[in-house]
Amino acid sequence: MSGLDLRAIATRARDAWRSLASLDHGRRDRGVLAIADELERRATDVLTASARDVARARDAGLSAAVIDRLALDERRLATLVEAVREIARQPDPLGEVLGMTVRPNGLRVGRVRVALGVVAMIYEARPNVTVDAAALCLKSGNAALLRGGSDARESNALLGELVRDALDRAGLPRDLVVALPPLDRAQTIELLSLSGVVDLVIPRGGEGLIRFVTEHARVPVIQHFQGVCHLYADEGCDHAMLGELIVNGKAQRPATCNATECLLVHEAEAATLLPRAVEALVAAGVEVRGCERTAAIAPSVVPASPADFGREFGEKILAVRVVGSLDEALAHVARFGSGHTEAICTRDYARAERWLREVDASCVLVNASTRFNDGGELGLGAEIGISTSKLHAYGPMGATHLTTTKWVVYGAGQTRR
Amino acid sequence: MSGLDLRAIATRARDAWRSLASLDHGRRDRGVLAIADELERRATDVLTASARDVARARDAGLSAAVIDRLALDERRLATLVEAVREIARQPDPLGEVLGMTVRPNGLRVGRVRVALGVVAMIYEARPNVTVDAAALCLKSGNAALLRGGSDARESNALLGELVRDALDRAGLPRDLVVALPPLDRAQTIELLSLSGVVDLVIPRGGEGLIRFVTEHARVPVIQHFQGVCHLYADEGCDHAMLGELIVNGKAQRPATCNATECLLVHEAEAATLLPRAVEALVAAGVEVRGCERTAAIAPSVVPASPADFGREFGEKILAVRVVGSLDEALAHVARFGSGHTEAICTRDYARAERWLREVDASCVLVNASTRFNDGGELGLGAEIGISTSKLHAYGPMGATHLTTTKWVVYGAGQTRR
Repeated sequence: MSGLDLRAIATRARDAWRSLASLDHGRRDRGVLAIADELERRATDVLTASARDVARARDAGLSAAVIDRLALDERRLATLVEAVREIARQPDPLGEVLGMTVRPNGLRVGRVRVALGVVAMIYEARPNVTVDAAALCLKSGNAALLRGGSDARESNALLGELVRDALDRAGLPRDLVVALPPLDRAQTIELLSLSGVVDLVIPRGGEGLIRFVTEHARVPVIQHFQGVCHLYADEGCDHAMLGELIVNGKAQRPATCNATECLLVHEAEAATLLPRAVEALVAAGVEVRGCERTAAIAPSVVPASPADFGREFGEKILAVRVVGSLDEALAHVARFGSGHTEAICTRDYARAERWLREVDASCVLVNASTRFNDGGELGLGAEIGISTSKLHAYGPMGATHLTTTKWVVYGAGQTRR
Repeated sequence: MSGLDLRAIATRARDAWRSLASLDHGRRDRGVLAIADELERRATDVLTASARDVARARDAGLSAAVIDRLALDERRLATLVEAVREIARQPDPLGEVLGMTVRPNGLRVGRVRVALGVVAMIYEARPNVTVDAAALCLKSGNAALLRGGSDARESNALLGELVRDALDRAGLPRDLVVALPPLDRAQTIELLSLSGVVDLVIPRGGEGLIRFVTEHARVPVIQHFQGVCHLYADEGCDHAMLGELIVNGKAQRPATCNATECLLVHEAEAATLLPRAVEALVAAGVEVRGCERTAAIAPSVVPASPADFGREFGEKILAVRVVGSLDEALAHVARFGSGHTEAICTRDYARAERWLREVDASCVLVNASTRFNDGGELGLGAEIGISTSKLHAYGPMGATHLTTTKWVVYGAGQTRR
């Protein structure tokens, strides 16, 4: 690792990026499709590299959850190939002209959607991110520096070379995508300091990784923090619907950031709603931790501690609290929510509108599972993460969020007075 | 200054901001108009406070340029009042619904434009920023923490209270706008660390201030770096037009960030274009520093040193270089430009298109002065700065750039499979 010249690597990526500006969308899409083809052609190599990463992780005694994130099998590889082809099918995120107008002095001015430049991804175990991020960056006209985790190093190295070979085959510069070797702390800080060469850093992973990146970055960062997502059962809500929304929100994939972590129940519904809801949750394998009022109604629940509110459990544990009003639910969400995903179950028009308007989160929902805050489900296509920063992107980020707009001005010799 | 509880102040601003979510546009605009009225009503007080700041600056021996930025006279105050009223007249930046669609499962999903939350401005001498920023933040539904420079402390304190009184009169919470007293280094770092309370920091001022903010911020920052703006005189360009563009770009207001700092001339035009252009520049009081080829053609120019390229002079000094081709001009801009504003003077369609496409800058122009990269001139209305970051805003920032979008989802009980 010593002697890795990150600035030189990033500068080569930037030079490769500049050459993209004169290429049209079709050329970029052919590159994306070539990645999918190359993945299919070398599937055996990919599965072998992944198997070696998994074996090493087993030997090192890593958790089943980490090993699951590392593993690429035939089915997952097929899904990945399909996702890359889907990215190629999406419309071009570049070139769109926004708000072209003629000024009183005759200048014609507007904005054009352009690529950002060099995007660095810093992520942990999942090797599919290497391919997804490369395809999304290429689709949106960016160069990509990919720093994956050391646990997936064999898969990442192979996938990185495979992507570069695909770029070659499509007549694009290899240096558009670089899968960096695992970096140590000092090297990661160096990468985060390449102001003027790297245009954006996206960290994906645990909170520790994201805080580290935020603290050391001298280039812009889009954060993907935790999701502490709530579902509020409003006065008069449909109990059957609520039961389905909470079981789906909590139990369908509890480790995802859009899983529901806390159920708030209006006191008028608590006595009738909670016993059945808790029963359904327990049947789905969920441990329910309730406030005192919840415990009084459904004695089977575990008493919640104060730390259970505002917590991302990431597993089949749910906090439940009885509230006296919509205002109290809104205040709870404002205090304990993480600005990620917040849902209400209601039959009341005015309260639905208040929820949508007053809750400050990247996605606010009425009568739908929090699990829908996802790029694919919201129609964005492939997703590079879910931003909880409000700047530039808020919520799921797709190819469009890897772009910016520049002003273009068509004149005839105008000067300023 | 000791004992200033910035977190408590910012939290009160955030609470005040939450109360805005339920108010409509008319209420916010009445607040903006009340600021203009209050400025007129208390004009004498404002002029007196400014005069005291100016007197103190004179006693301290500050430069004429700083004193000019500090001074508010009747004419400037009238301009400021008019600018605030113009902000009120602009359309509401909030509430716009983007891309509402129905998903295959019947979910209706889209994005709604909402305020960011608490915006902190960190700026230097100009007291008009206190009013401009307060009005733009209120227009866009944000709370504002305003940290002005110590040179303008009397004006800023008075203007801050005046704005809060105007909010009062309009029935809005005073805490939406706080003009902070001048902060020391540790306090500024504390302000920059209020992650989760402050949503955005915008530094405006010299490069030292911006680097300091970038280095210490743990909240998102939009940078407004220097403008090293070029004008390229293409082969076959209109020499008379070029003369007007370069004199306007350099001499009309040389201290602004969109002033032209460097003229690049195609070698085919140099012999005939440069003598007249240099003459016009000198007549406008400009010192011309030329490369060797320039000096050979126009012996009156000062020889340029390597440091004169890529430099923001901020005064009536211009660097000039002869280049062999458009490609050489593009390479010069890629190396020495600051991503701010880049113009070409040309008659050739294909080269104009290449310039617009390949130059990476917040504003690219054909046959127009670089001075047009300005919110007012581009039709944005009032401007809060010109961003040279590519994230979120690139180029002039208006009220719309103080917003984000959140996803809204209307369901009927849908769950995820």
